[in-house]
Amino acid sequence: MTRAHPPMLARHVMERSINAALAEDLGEAGDITSQATIGPNATAVARINARSAGVICGLECAVAAFSLVGPGLETKQFVSDGAIIGSGDAILEVHGNARNLLAAERTALNFLTHLSGIATLTRSFVLQTEGTNARICCTRKTTPGLRALEKYAVRCGGGHNHRFGLNDAILIKDNHIAVAGGLPAAIDAARSFAGHLVAIEVEVDTLSQLEEALGAGVNAILLDNMDEDTLAQAVAIAAGRAKLEASGNVTLERVAAIARTGVDYISTSRITSASVPLDLGLDISID
Amino acid sequence: MTRAHPPMLARHVMERSINAALAEDLGEAGDITSQATIGPNATAVARINARSAGVICGLECAVAAFSLVGPGLETKQFVSDGAIIGSGDAILEVHGNARNLLAAERTALNFLTHLSGIATLTRSFVLQTEGTNARICCTRKTTPGLRALEKYAVRCGGGHNHRFGLNDAILIKDNHIAVAGGLPAAIDAARSFAGHLVAIEVEVDTLSQLEEALGAGVNAILLDNMDEDTLAQAVAIAAGRAKLEASGNVTLERVAAIARTGVDYISTSRITSASVPLDLGLDISID
Amino acid sequence: MTRAHPPMLARHVMERSINAALAEDLGEAGDITSQATIGPNATAVARINARSAGVICGLECAVAAFSLVGPGLETKQFVSDGAIIGSGDAILEVHGNARNLLAAERTALNFLTHLSGIATLTRSFVLQTEGTNARICCTRKTTPGLRALEKYAVRCGGGHNHRFGLNDAILIKDNHIAVAGGLPAAIDAARSFAGHLVAIEVEVDTLSQLEEALGAGVNAILLDNMDEDTLAQAVAIAAGRAKLEASGNVTLERVAAIARTGVDYISTSRITSASVPLDLGLDISID
Amino acid sequence: MTRAHPPMLARHVMERSINAALAEDLGEAGDITSQATIGPNATAVARINARSAGVICGLECAVAAFSLVGPGLETKQFVSDGAIIGSGDAILEVHGNARNLLAAERTALNFLTHLSGIATLTRSFVLQTEGTNARICCTRKTTPGLRALEKYAVRCGGGHNHRFGLNDAILIKDNHIAVAGGLPAAIDAARSFAGHLVAIEVEVDTLSQLEEALGAGVNAILLDNMDEDTLAQAVAIAAGRAKLEASGNVTLERVAAIARTGVDYISTSRITSASVPLDLGLDISID
Amino acid sequence: MTRAHPPMLARHVMERSINAALAEDLGEAGDITSQATIGPNATAVARINARSAGVICGLECAVAAFSLVGPGLETKQFVSDGAIIGSGDAILEVHGNARNLLAAERTALNFLTHLSGIATLTRSFVLQTEGTNARICCTRKTTPGLRALEKYAVRCGGGHNHRFGLNDAILIKDNHIAVAGGLPAAIDAARSFAGHLVAIEVEVDTLSQLEEALGAGVNAILLDNMDEDTLAQAVAIAAGRAKLEASGNVTLERVAAIARTGVDYISTSRITSASVPLDLGLDISID
Amino acid sequence: MTRAHPPMLARHVMERSINAALAEDLGEAGDITSQATIGPNATAVARINARSAGVICGLECAVAAFSLVGPGLETKQFVSDGAIIGSGDAILEVHGNARNLLAAERTALNFLTHLSGIATLTRSFVLQTEGTNARICCTRKTTPGLRALEKYAVRCGGGHNHRFGLNDAILIKDNHIAVAGGLPAAIDAARSFAGHLVAIEVEVDTLSQLEEALGAGVNAILLDNMDEDTLAQAVAIAAGRAKLEASGNVTLERVAAIARTGVDYISTSRITSASVPLDLGLDISID
Repeated sequence: MTRAHPPMLARHVMERSINAALAEDLGEAGDITSQATIGPNATAVARINARSAGVICGLECAVAAFSLVGPGLETKQFVSDGAIIGSGDAILEVHGNARNLLAAERTALNFLTHLSGIATLTRSFVLQTEGTNARICCTRKTTPGLRALEKYAVRCGGGHNHRFGLNDAILIKDNHIAVAGGLPAAIDAARSFAGHLVAIEVEVDTLSQLEEALGAGVNAILLDNMDEDTLAQAVAIAAGRAKLEASGNVTLERVAAIARTGVDYISTSRITSASVPLDLGLDISID
Repeated sequence: MTRAHPPMLARHVMERSINAALAEDLGEAGDITSQATIGPNATAVARINARSAGVICGLECAVAAFSLVGPGLETKQFVSDGAIIGSGDAILEVHGNARNLLAAERTALNFLTHLSGIATLTRSFVLQTEGTNARICCTRKTTPGLRALEKYAVRCGGGHNHRFGLNDAILIKDNHIAVAGGLPAAIDAARSFAGHLVAIEVEVDTLSQLEEALGAGVNAILLDNMDEDTLAQAVAIAAGRAKLEASGNVTLERVAAIARTGVDYISTSRITSASVPLDLGLDISID
Repeated sequence: MTRAHPPMLARHVMERSINAALAEDLGEAGDITSQATIGPNATAVARINARSAGVICGLECAVAAFSLVGPGLETKQFVSDGAIIGSGDAILEVHGNARNLLAAERTALNFLTHLSGIATLTRSFVLQTEGTNARICCTRKTTPGLRALEKYAVRCGGGHNHRFGLNDAILIKDNHIAVAGGLPAAIDAARSFAGHLVAIEVEVDTLSQLEEALGAGVNAILLDNMDEDTLAQAVAIAAGRAKLEASGNVTLERVAAIARTGVDYISTSRITSASVPLDLGLDISID
Repeated sequence: MTRAHPPMLARHVMERSINAALAEDLGEAGDITSQATIGPNATAVARINARSAGVICGLECAVAAFSLVGPGLETKQFVSDGAIIGSGDAILEVHGNARNLLAAERTALNFLTHLSGIATLTRSFVLQTEGTNARICCTRKTTPGLRALEKYAVRCGGGHNHRFGLNDAILIKDNHIAVAGGLPAAIDAARSFAGHLVAIEVEVDTLSQLEEALGAGVNAILLDNMDEDTLAQAVAIAAGRAKLEASGNVTLERVAAIARTGVDYISTSRITSASVPLDLGLDISID
Repeated sequence: MTRAHPPMLARHVMERSINAALAEDLGEAGDITSQATIGPNATAVARINARSAGVICGLECAVAAFSLVGPGLETKQFVSDGAIIGSGDAILEVHGNARNLLAAERTALNFLTHLSGIATLTRSFVLQTEGTNARICCTRKTTPGLRALEKYAVRCGGGHNHRFGLNDAILIKDNHIAVAGGLPAAIDAARSFAGHLVAIEVEVDTLSQLEEALGAGVNAILLDNMDEDTLAQAVAIAAGRAKLEASGNVTLERVAAIARTGVDYISTSRITSASVPLDLGLDISID
Repeated sequence: MTRAHPPMLARHVMERSINAALAEDLGEAGDITSQATIGPNATAVARINARSAGVICGLECAVAAFSLVGPGLETKQFVSDGAIIGSGDAILEVHGNARNLLAAERTALNFLTHLSGIATLTRSFVLQTEGTNARICCTRKTTPGLRALEKYAVRCGGGHNHRFGLNDAILIKDNHIAVAGGLPAAIDAARSFAGHLVAIEVEVDTLSQLEEALGAGVNAILLDNMDEDTLAQAVAIAAGRAKLEASGNVTLERVAAIARTGVDYISTSRITSASVPLDLGLDISID
């Protein structure tokens, strides 16, 4: 199940984030240490290397940070987003105006290490599901303001994306069902409202709810907090009539067992919220 | 060493983040599930409770999310930012327009759980240093776009803040020293450039560099990657002539030992980058 | 097939548009005619009435315009968005500060007449399809910057929405098919890439392409520029295996015939691009 | 009466609109169909041709859309804004990165067809007035957010612009007159308030009001909803003492008769609000 | 020639400036001195008094600063913009949350003192022209980003506004004349291009140019750098055929003599660029 | 005490200001005089020369204005920011598209003359203190929205910067002291709150307060409104234990006497608020 083409970040999404991060780190006065100690025409070379193995993600962000901070910097990428790297691998080289290089360094690294951390953890989950048809996907529990970038990192790690927001798919939960007057009524309301390219998913807690949802006809069903046995029964009951998504308490230890139940998707917020930054080193020499 | 007054988020910083997060989650079409299944005048009540113990942070953000999403929601806080809570404690109640409540729910929780996670982990580090004078502080390794909020969370957890950005203090590292022509020259350049309310810190790797820095006169000295013995020697050498900050490989296991060396500050990116979201539950009932 | 609940505009989408329009009309100097001729404390009453029959849309925008222009205005709505109105019907009353009322008047009307024009024309198309299962839906041929508002107007007129943008559904056209190496390969690539809540549609020109698409399994198929006979054959061939969307040369005269072929959706850019502003009158009296 | 020099769009106005439109169409996830089916290095060529005759407008916007979406696209214009084109004429060619080309295609076309539609309809009105001194001009009834672009399209079609907003000229209507205590008092107030480069116009309904306005001295007088006979009388009465503008019920059928009355300006919202998009075709081939 | 109604600032213009200024002064961390020393619920009262005589301007800005900084502050104005105040006069009182009051204090004062300084200096020039028909007006030499506010201050001081920008009137200078092929050709081009509510002014250096401009018919003529004798001759030559504006080397000492020549307008950048902040004192007491 | 390296403006700060100023001057319609009289392909050359001696500042802003207004302009700098120039010296040459050149001319000059005026006045104060150790520094009394640029101009004139905002240093005044319960308590609170790179200053009115502050240990002490004798006593009392800053009634006449008292810093708002624009001339020739 190779991904034929790498994913892509929309330019305006990436630049919005990079510009916000640069402004946040430079404030109104800019990098005062460099202004004090380094001449305006000094040049430097920086090299980013991996200090541990993982999946790299955010290279385009890093390149954009070095470009948007000001003129005079050139970058050379040694790998691309989604690449599986080993400790010591060369990632990126930057050379040019020393003040601008130092001003963007931390911003570039903060994006790279954060997104690579997510891609790397995602891949760990994906590897556990090898040999099954289950796909790992993320949730809407993402860092405020960085959702598009974090979902991109999930894709770079071999995972898939759930909804980007409340706007692009319908996910009916217990409250919606209660207010709408039952599961079939809620699904009817969703069909009546939604355009034909809006997918509808229902969250269920029990197998009897599952059967009700299957009867009503939906694109996908979220099986919330079920154990492996129940999940396997759900797969048997559904028999391909809807995509099944397992959710709740998805740990790295348990994910393989969940995948073997035959569910189509396993969604977890862990890949975005429990990742740690990938360890990258940056060495600078200033002329 | 009680904190006399709670810290505070500038309104424009908080609203900038909340508005960006709401826009990200609602897209152009808004919450289509609620539009399909819930009437425009339905009302709901939501209650956020702690599912584990920790330090709460981000309540004002959550309240702002429920306010900025649209009209018709009222909130009631049961605790304040910085409060040490136990599992099961009531945190926040919201009631009013059901569509708006559901539209803001995830955004409010994403801020609350992320910031509370940082405050909680910070407190774990702070507790390890009790009985010493060492203060735990964060770094510039923060999530892009959320630095001010994450640094606020560190303060809520009992920690202190390092520089907010490259603009508000001078931190001289080896590259600056090399270009400036030595440590004394770099410090001279910094003094010559900086205003009188800009503090100057120098990063040193060895005790001989430490002595050179003490001779030149700086506000603080960052002792990079030293073991406890070397840190203790550094404290003895400095004898109060500058604030000493220990940095590098600061784990929860090791932090007490570092604190006992007598250093004034222990800085670590772990409190912002290795935290996990605090587990909070939100129960909604819609009328 | 009544719409159970009215649609809704996300606050940030609406306010972004209203603020841009107010800034555009007021420039830097504001309403200089009113400043010259009307005192700062004068009050006025304005009443908006329909001068022709139609479907009203944009009332919330109008209310927001009178609110965002400055303090001191109160509004009273006589109908709600989606209401079918007759010539002479009262729509909205505003009273309060005369300068602010005059400053927002044109902006409020520009939104109201434009969106009501779209809702009204949409309803004309919808009425032609009564007694069939076909739904009228819009396209991405919308006025730049106003897509979410125009799609909302389509919903208020009884229509449905196609994709909001390139981001929220997959629509495979001939170029994608050519590059991907054929229709099945393109659909495979789409499935491999997309999350489980992303619907996939394929555009076909011929019945043989239709059969190929049905074989590959997609959510919907766009039948481009087919005559009624061919559409009817397509419906027979598909036999419910995918949603069918007719597109191309959809006029008010022809839409009923298209609907009777049994297609599920009829998409047309006419409802957003060929509408004319609904004729509304605004009478003001200043105290 | 040839226009010596073509008009021009301010860069910040154009880029503001293009960036908003691209963001609207690409959302957070970008063009997911292209990401799924087309490699990141594939290239394409697109050619935009006219499918009907008209006046082209918005070429610079289209070029900007292909430039702002991301790197890697080059454009070649075959005509310029304001050109009178025939069906089949080549308009614009774009080649380069296929993903970026497809991502910007709809945005570019939406601007081109919308603005060309306005320019084309404006020219139809202008042609009806040939042989007279009357100039066709637009109003403030424009699409919210696009006023500057639509007024530019009017100029490209041979028309003229009325006020851009409430800020750049004084137009005294009945309400202002009533509050100010009569027409002379209102004009006095306007003169007293306004700078010397602010023109003053008064709206009148009757010939006696016209005489009063002429007596008070204004730059222009708007003759609201008068029939051709009355307009001709107004021209005779004014005898060049002020510019006369006819307004109200200006149809393509009636505009020539209005022009022959000798009025200086004929203003109509039809050219901006009743235009239909110019029919342009875009053919793409991807390598 | 009293100004019947006070001028007015557009809300979006004012809020844009206030929000930018607050963000600039509060940075990401906010007012750290107050956070450290003052409790979140402490209240304070501040009173702004004049320490010298002048014309007050910017009160609405100050009130907005105290409102936009955060909740909990109430203000009471003792005078209004444009009021002529004496030393010691009470201007504004604010009470409420102490932290927010201190956070907005400097921003509020910076607007008040800067704008009042301009209004005060404008009035000094205006007083020198009493008994003549000459009006004092400002230029486009304003502080970047504050033009609308500074032009408002000029109006509050009894002055008038020249163009707000390059967009709202035509001012033909020597370069335009040279390129256009002479003054009459330039004026023809302007007439042909401009809408009927765009005023046209020509800058002339000599009396022969003045006669040429009068012959071509323009709304106003700028007499650049002429001495009083030449200005008086210009007034005699023009004989009311166009408004005359004197410009260049307009000092407080010389302005009365210029006014007595009979010119209609005297424009000077001094009133915006050579003003000094009005001396205002702010006394705070915190509970 | 030469400044080894010139200061630097952060790109995002500069571009934010330039873009705002261009938008303000061009409005929605752009430069209508140039559009009317100058062809779109005409080229021009402009040369900016000094008309009086001073310190130049803002060259990078001017260059950015000519770059951001649109394509087609090239610039050549003859001097750099901070250069001491004489009347007649060449400053900047621009050549290229005539319309864009004219559109940016006033914006470029407004920045250059305003910032050079501040740099020039700052240098006048700095020259008065030659032979002493006192440094001239600015305050937070700056033009709203331009603080970073004005503080940069102060540095270009040889001065130093005080706090950029309320966020980057602690300055304890009488109100803070009163609320905190005395000066030592206030300083304790500040220390407890602040990070180790935040400097603390206390404002004192009397020598006894000075002694109290020295006893509590702070980085700097602001001596408010003291005469020269008292300042000299303060210097003697402090004996190097804290930096001393003199403030209040700092005139160009008095500043040398203050400097000779031995204080370390002399802060004054005059250099930012009482400067006049440096007189620069711009000559244009259009092809």
